[in-house]
Amino acid sequence: MAAAPVWSVDPRTGNPREQVAVEATAEEVDRAVRSAHAARDPLADRAVRAAFLRGAAGLLADSAEHVIEAADAETALGPARLTGELARTAAQLRAFADVVDEGAFLDVHIDHEDPTRTPPWPDLRRYKVPLGVVAVYAASNFPLAFSVPGGDTASALAAGCPVVVKAHPDHPATSELCASVLRRAAARVGLPEDVLVLVHGFEAGIELIKHPLVAAAGFTGSVRGGRALYDLAAARPAPIPFHGELGSLNPVVVTEAAAAERGERIGAGLAGSMTMGLGQFCTKPGLVLAPAGETGDRLLESLTDAVSDTEAGALLDHRMRDAFLAGVRERAELPGVRAPVTPGAGGDHTVAAGFLTVPAHLLADGGPHDALLEECFGPVTVVARYASGTEATAVLSRLPGNLTATLHIATDGPDADAPALLSALAPLAGRVLVNGWPTGVAVAPAQHHGGPYPASTSTSTSVGTTAVERWLRPLTYQSTPEALLPPELHEGNPLGLPRRVDGRRA
Amino acid sequence: MAAAPVWSVDPRTGNPREQVAVEATAEEVDRAVRSAHAARDPLADRAVRAAFLRGAAGLLADSAEHVIEAADAETALGPARLTGELARTAAQLRAFADVVDEGAFLDVHIDHEDPTRTPPWPDLRRYKVPLGVVAVYAASNFPLAFSVPGGDTASALAAGCPVVVKAHPDHPATSELCASVLRRAAARVGLPEDVLVLVHGFEAGIELIKHPLVAAAGFTGSVRGGRALYDLAAARPAPIPFHGELGSLNPVVVTEAAAAERGERIGAGLAGSMTMGLGQFCTKPGLVLAPAGETGDRLLESLTDAVSDTEAGALLDHRMRDAFLAGVRERAELPGVRAPVTPGAGGDHTVAAGFLTVPAHLLADGGPHDALLEECFGPVTVVARYASGTEATAVLSRLPGNLTATLHIATDGPDADAPALLSALAPLAGRVLVNGWPTGVAVAPAQHHGGPYPASTSTSTSVGTTAVERWLRPLTYQSTPEALLPPELHEGNPLGLPRRVDGRRA
Repeated sequence: MAAAPVWSVDPRTGNPREQVAVEATAEEVDRAVRSAHAARDPLADRAVRAAFLRGAAGLLADSAEHVIEAADAETALGPARLTGELARTAAQLRAFADVVDEGAFLDVHIDHEDPTRTPPWPDLRRYKVPLGVVAVYAASNFPLAFSVPGGDTASALAAGCPVVVKAHPDHPATSELCASVLRRAAARVGLPEDVLVLVHGFEAGIELIKHPLVAAAGFTGSVRGGRALYDLAAARPAPIPFHGELGSLNPVVVTEAAAAERGERIGAGLAGSMTMGLGQFCTKPGLVLAPAGETGDRLLESLTDAVSDTEAGALLDHRMRDAFLAGVRERAELPGVRAPVTPGAGGDHTVAAGFLTVPAHLLADGGPHDALLEECFGPVTVVARYASGTEATAVLSRLPGNLTATLHIATDGPDADAPALLSALAPLAGRVLVNGWPTGVAVAPAQHHGGPYPASTSTSTSVGTTAVERWLRPLTYQSTPEALLPPELHEGNPLGLPRRVDGRRA
Repeated sequence: MAAAPVWSVDPRTGNPREQVAVEATAEEVDRAVRSAHAARDPLADRAVRAAFLRGAAGLLADSAEHVIEAADAETALGPARLTGELARTAAQLRAFADVVDEGAFLDVHIDHEDPTRTPPWPDLRRYKVPLGVVAVYAASNFPLAFSVPGGDTASALAAGCPVVVKAHPDHPATSELCASVLRRAAARVGLPEDVLVLVHGFEAGIELIKHPLVAAAGFTGSVRGGRALYDLAAARPAPIPFHGELGSLNPVVVTEAAAAERGERIGAGLAGSMTMGLGQFCTKPGLVLAPAGETGDRLLESLTDAVSDTEAGALLDHRMRDAFLAGVRERAELPGVRAPVTPGAGGDHTVAAGFLTVPAHLLADGGPHDALLEECFGPVTVVARYASGTEATAVLSRLPGNLTATLHIATDGPDADAPALLSALAPLAGRVLVNGWPTGVAVAPAQHHGGPYPASTSTSTSVGTTAVERWLRPLTYQSTPEALLPPELHEGNPLGLPRRVDGRRA
């Protein structure tokens, strides 16, 4: 059987650009995992790892022109956005190099022998060790920041785990280019290139999650795809952690006072956030609870103006375009739903942004209107008009988990509705925002990009420095002579690590 | 249909003692979970939680006489062991009260706004919040420390999660008694008693793991039972974290030099560890790699003497006794296996300790001898005699995950075999020990009680203060005015919490 070709496709025309690779067979996936597995010992050296991540950041920046050109050609995301994404991806690699240098992620604990305890304590020393080969499933919508050189890869390498990336079919050429950058950076610091291996193909992704030497997985994508892989990970003879970011509606609530104070500004801000990247963000605000009265009307007028002014554009691929068109059609046809700006087809290959409105009380009771409480990928949002706080919280109580939840409140004085609404939003999401927009996710230590299912399949974050915690397991040494201990656990702390000794931070 | 009765049974006679409760119906499980869920707001107060845990420890100690009497009557573990277990369980509750007071588990991170970043950072503040109701599946072999008042319960309550415990059928009376102690302690500090609810019954356990308001689960028990519940947790519409401790062989390797130095002492120590609690410990050493020659013979002689001197006793229940007898029979019949002290039936209700030997090379290739690489619950261990280091590591390479792995080396000088063997053992377990025995698990910050599957279904620990991390999820507040922030995230740190500010520990 001939190997299945992998084509790079121009989403602006639907035309194939070039054959980039072939899909990996089961044997090739096995080889990829084994060669990555064999690279774990050299990767155990923290200084080399940090140098590798910094070198990768540098090489990625040096290759920016080619990478951005390739990514734009096969994603249509545009050079401006991709330039920012590349800078962010390089900064992310450097941030994880800093994490490796500091070593706090090793979570060193030392408890000296204590015979007065019940039962007595022997000498116990714990740190965290890498889990093994990590499978990374790249996202469609971030060809860099959530793909080959992205956060899952960077955090796994920082933890000391070799990575096998399953490329996203929307950007195979970019993936190949980025993989070569990372592999070159590995070779430059003396690491085996196979600390990162790239595979293509749907079946290859399934083989990968089932491979006995794969120890954990990271995923960013749809609920359907992510859940299928999660189920396979859980069904293995030895199940593995599956950190998947699947889907999110990202509810926004605008209080009466906020709408009265600055409804126009909120409408314009919402338009910017929901159309950013043509609505192809996991943090796109997909449901907005706005007051039913005149203040809400002003918000809607400004939203209408701003969304009408948005240019049509090409989504990441034609399957997404079809799903978007079907999704908005299904939703627009529901009783009580109106479309002040109709989202839909632009030209043959593009889509135009729009939004829908619905009385909030129609969302409180289930039934066909539940479709409005599901994510619709692309430049559309649903504005639910509420007549009372009770109506708003009734809708919130029906939402599944989210990456983000946003509250817009008055700024010129206390907003009486704010505390109760924030309390209703906090259980729904991994990140709550006040008077901001959820798109744009800072790679910061205090970041949390995750949330109750289906936002995430775990309690971990996929963005920010604590993302490294996903790829480690604790290992305790009991009563072990110093000569046999890893240097991280030596009494004198030769590596200068932050640690807890006898329960106290030292 | 009449409610199914739950009987307390005397394992020393097999006779029912008394009817203790009835099995919970699906409706009763639903009520239990809902009432626990309703108790989560009062439990959010950290000072009250700490007082509750300390009060529970005090009440448990005050009730020691009754609790130990009940536990001994239905587990046959004996007053001495149970007195120690109660002290350990009370100490564990107090240790988690200290964890609550310190607040490091909240993992507070604050990143101030920084427009110079790529992309710019807004003000981000993160801490951890309780997941919700935790289902705890009690263990047979620790009626206190891993059951109603045990580590899963204590750590979940410390995290702020109400608990529904599914009692183990081996000690329903003890479970009822301990639940009443904990509920009384809750009431004394003004908490709803339903912060802890007890249910009985196999079907109730299944209903519990499927309940939409159950947010996570802890389990200690068999691979079969644990895996079935893990699978149910993963198959839920919204999957939940399942922290299960399932099974472990706990390999021990004795070097040639260690056997030469103190083979007799190691044999006696092994006998003590493998027969402790009649071999009913998850950390019982179940496979010992000892040298084939004369030094190993001396180890075996002392093991033979010590095990022969061990008194027969009653296992926790008759099902376990049947499984033990069948398990040792099956293993003893394998070609090349000998039984210097035959494990088997004592009297009608008791079992006698013993051990098997086998040439290590028979374990290197799979086939029927693989039965010797599976845990056999009860007072039996397998001593595999190795002729070379290669033979020993070949056996180790075939082992699944373990809670512990132990190495015995010479103490009177460097042991040339030690480094390579320790490197072979570390990937196999969550805790490695040198010159000690794995039974006895200190409740210490540096403890790790977990390990690669099937030792654990997750990377977390079920013993030690970091066990609290299992029941929390991060929540980030972005650009939120201080008046709306929880006090844990206020700029001035009014609660005096350990935290990271702008990436630095403060």
